[in-house]
Amino acid sequence: MTDNTARLLINCPDAPGIVSAVSGFLYQHGANITDLDQHATAPIGGSYFMRLEFQTEQMTLSPEALSSAFQTQVAERYQMNWHISYAAQRKRMAILVSKHDHAMLELLWRWSRGALPCDIAMVISNHNDLRDDVEGFGVPFHHVPVTADNKQQAEAEIETLLQGVDLIVLARYMQILSADFTARWPNRIINIHHSFLPAFVGANPYQQAYDKGVKLIGATAHYVTADLDQGPIIEQDVERVSHRDEVPTLREMGQDVERQVLARAVRWHLEDRILIHGNKTIVFS
Amino acid sequence: MTDNTARLLINCPDAPGIVSAVSGFLYQHGANITDLDQHATAPIGGSYFMRLEFQTEQMTLSPEALSSAFQTQVAERYQMNWHISYAAQRKRMAILVSKHDHAMLELLWRWSRGALPCDIAMVISNHNDLRDDVEGFGVPFHHVPVTADNKQQAEAEIETLLQGVDLIVLARYMQILSADFTARWPNRIINIHHSFLPAFVGANPYQQAYDKGVKLIGATAHYVTADLDQGPIIEQDVERVSHRDEVPTLREMGQDVERQVLARAVRWHLEDRILIHGNKTIVFS
Amino acid sequence: MTDNTARLLINCPDAPGIVSAVSGFLYQHGANITDLDQHATAPIGGSYFMRLEFQTEQMTLSPEALSSAFQTQVAERYQMNWHISYAAQRKRMAILVSKHDHAMLELLWRWSRGALPCDIAMVISNHNDLRDDVEGFGVPFHHVPVTADNKQQAEAEIETLLQGVDLIVLARYMQILSADFTARWPNRIINIHHSFLPAFVGANPYQQAYDKGVKLIGATAHYVTADLDQGPIIEQDVERVSHRDEVPTLREMGQDVERQVLARAVRWHLEDRILIHGNKTIVFS
Amino acid sequence: MTDNTARLLINCPDAPGIVSAVSGFLYQHGANITDLDQHATAPIGGSYFMRLEFQTEQMTLSPEALSSAFQTQVAERYQMNWHISYAAQRKRMAILVSKHDHAMLELLWRWSRGALPCDIAMVISNHNDLRDDVEGFGVPFHHVPVTADNKQQAEAEIETLLQGVDLIVLARYMQILSADFTARWPNRIINIHHSFLPAFVGANPYQQAYDKGVKLIGATAHYVTADLDQGPIIEQDVERVSHRDEVPTLREMGQDVERQVLARAVRWHLEDRILIHGNKTIVFS
Repeated sequence: MTDNTARLLINCPDAPGIVSAVSGFLYQHGANITDLDQHATAPIGGSYFMRLEFQTEQMTLSPEALSSAFQTQVAERYQMNWHISYAAQRKRMAILVSKHDHAMLELLWRWSRGALPCDIAMVISNHNDLRDDVEGFGVPFHHVPVTADNKQQAEAEIETLLQGVDLIVLARYMQILSADFTARWPNRIINIHHSFLPAFVGANPYQQAYDKGVKLIGATAHYVTADLDQGPIIEQDVERVSHRDEVPTLREMGQDVERQVLARAVRWHLEDRILIHGNKTIVFS
Repeated sequence: MTDNTARLLINCPDAPGIVSAVSGFLYQHGANITDLDQHATAPIGGSYFMRLEFQTEQMTLSPEALSSAFQTQVAERYQMNWHISYAAQRKRMAILVSKHDHAMLELLWRWSRGALPCDIAMVISNHNDLRDDVEGFGVPFHHVPVTADNKQQAEAEIETLLQGVDLIVLARYMQILSADFTARWPNRIINIHHSFLPAFVGANPYQQAYDKGVKLIGATAHYVTADLDQGPIIEQDVERVSHRDEVPTLREMGQDVERQVLARAVRWHLEDRILIHGNKTIVFS
Repeated sequence: MTDNTARLLINCPDAPGIVSAVSGFLYQHGANITDLDQHATAPIGGSYFMRLEFQTEQMTLSPEALSSAFQTQVAERYQMNWHISYAAQRKRMAILVSKHDHAMLELLWRWSRGALPCDIAMVISNHNDLRDDVEGFGVPFHHVPVTADNKQQAEAEIETLLQGVDLIVLARYMQILSADFTARWPNRIINIHHSFLPAFVGANPYQQAYDKGVKLIGATAHYVTADLDQGPIIEQDVERVSHRDEVPTLREMGQDVERQVLARAVRWHLEDRILIHGNKTIVFS
Repeated sequence: MTDNTARLLINCPDAPGIVSAVSGFLYQHGANITDLDQHATAPIGGSYFMRLEFQTEQMTLSPEALSSAFQTQVAERYQMNWHISYAAQRKRMAILVSKHDHAMLELLWRWSRGALPCDIAMVISNHNDLRDDVEGFGVPFHHVPVTADNKQQAEAEIETLLQGVDLIVLARYMQILSADFTARWPNRIINIHHSFLPAFVGANPYQQAYDKGVKLIGATAHYVTADLDQGPIIEQDVERVSHRDEVPTLREMGQDVERQVLARAVRWHLEDRILIHGNKTIVFS
């Protein structure tokens, strides 16, 4: 049974009549709108963001003809950035990981039971430790060691492997990707950071949280940009801790938060629920 | 400065073209849509619910003409139940309370700082204890004692007082309203129940929660129907408790949850964010 | 490296001097107290509960001699029910499961990374579906089919398998254990129920929650007694839902809560943090 | 009816036998221990913290004699910093506030219903706006204007007013107290900061949170030291927000969190539940 759902994402300057123009266009061509979210950053003169889900069964145009007609009949008039994706064309995802297995396993497990609408094309790691775990899910595993000397070459090797991939998830990948690399994958790399950003950027956030004596620890899923730990935040959550919790306990508790936060962020991306506005996200969840 | 916001609530059988028809109608008459939420209870053949916020400054029709045109040009075609409200016409709210002050004070305080968009017409109580608190906010206080003998007469007196009121909030009013009374105010009476319904219906839910040894206590705001504690749930929240917490502590902690839950439910009602579907709510928050 | 931690659990009528008597006894015999929790159910005349962790490295008595001395020198005087366990003697746990894998996998995964201090002796299931998952963790899997006709015999077979097991975890085991069975394992069977008990007892709680329109769904870990879904509650948690969430989504979200709640409850049991008081638990977490 | 509860707080180097020595001492003198919490910062060689609640009805010594005996018989041996407080001697609290009323009103309201065990001696403000609110609770209000020129003099005036006060609460007091002032009130000034520290120190944290696009906003209650926003954290909490929430909404939602967080922190301080360890708190809640 084919999933006939399509999603239209729009970003444009706010103006009267957008909803009417877009919904009228879709209706006219037999596309049945089943979900609609919108957001304007200001009552007047702001930016406008929209997400529509529609069913294509009765659609009178091919996807190509629909796109072409939408561009000329609607998008140009409102200066829209827009994109249509079809659920039947599953995104291809790659996971980059080092030695910590918790975030990666959470994604593999959810994917294996059909809770993440994507193909997991591969897992790439700078260590070999998790090979058996990955291959047990029937997913290819690639070991690309990274040293101080071969960093550029390793990234090149990784990018060759990533041909045809739509989304990269850093599930506790402990290497910093170069600015060149991240620039080639804008809004297509999701990282899980093990703190409630912007608190505790950088290394060892659980030690930082312990030293500071915070009463909640958290995790943050965000898109990766050239600025380390500074990309658009997709999702965050926290867990209550107390003076009794030493750093290893914080790490253990934090990993539970990381798993949940990353899984939500990845699912939202795969369902085209996230739009970018400057350095912030709009999440139509 | 006038608030030019209007809100259109719609409930109808689902069908293709509704968004296009409604948004096209509003655009055509100069109403600028600034928010839109929708929900269908099933992909096909379900019920359809919609809430639109629009700005009326450039509107080319009077409110009366708009309503009349909407009925004939859109609503009839889709068999819509619909309602337009204007933010400038503030709803009139009455609070019924007994002796516990916490829920009532929370509403009065939020209202006094402009966080609840309504007029509070009066507080009615079956006790006189809270008169000073209420009058200190400049709100009229009415004492309507209720006994086993005068219940019907007391309700009549209350309903006379309630002339012109849009919303009744039971902020821990410890009398059960008659079925006749509640039938005259469908979806216009909000009650705060001091448990996480449907657990612990009836009297003394904190004692019930204590006896059961639950690890979370909660509160529920719901519309009042003739079935006690069974009306559509608007909002719920919980707080973590432990074996250390005796009934008085549960009550104290629960009251904090009640205040938050009731305040949210009342605000959503006042902003026309709640639609009813059978015995459930759809909350476009 | 041996874990020298021991734990002393005490339940007795409240009386002055208990802390002094117990801590003095341990100190006198070289047991170093590193953690202490206590709870009295009333200021005067209630029940008293205590948990101590102590280190045995400098202890001057054997475990047997310590127990014997504690009984005669302290416990008899205060009419104590008490128990000492040693962390080095890991508890043996068995998991019973049907077809849903989420709760079982969560336990196996935490156990495999050292986060659950126990040996997992086996997984028993009335279906064969999860055999590979279980054996992949190096844990024996037993398939014991249950039908309307063989229920008694199946329980007998299960109990034979359970020889030497300390704790049974029902990780979504969809068969009801007989009263005879549960009576032989008092406070040693933990079940995860997929609702916020006491709401939605019985079958299909997610459908019940959906029909009721609650705004939070939950899960409950509890000890199993002869009264279905009525045993002492160990842990509960909830997740926020909305009108958009259909039953399958509630189930998916609920499973995340179940995993967390069950993992916490099992860990607390394994660390001897739970005492029973009537039909309630005292959790020294 | 007198409250006969006393509380003993202890901080000392960890050593075997402390529980036994302290509980034995109290038992010997007829003090009935009704609650006991302890914490060691490391298994061996760390710092040790303890809080005991005991009932004084059967006590055979006067408070003065008890203190003297405890010092010579127990405290000196273990190099203890310690303090005994008696619930019957209510702490005197002063509130400093500027123009935002929410945090102050929450404290006054809880105090007025007996939920904060203290006397509120006065409210001091650098503005006159909240005078009526304060005096309505029967609490003295002092207006001490602060300008760029009179800052030192204003602080002197405030400190004169504060004679006999035990605890100062900054309930959104928008002036920075001098290092000299804070040094004279170590661990006796509680501030509510309107962010999840250490994120968003300094001015206008809600604008900072909005610009950063975080998905949770928070509040932090902490003791005040000479380092602005850096004192020991007592309590924190967060609330979920989305892209829809503009700065005024964040502020409104944040104020609800501030009220809850500050109320909890103040109650814990008044009940002697907080010990300081370096720049961190140990909260026996």
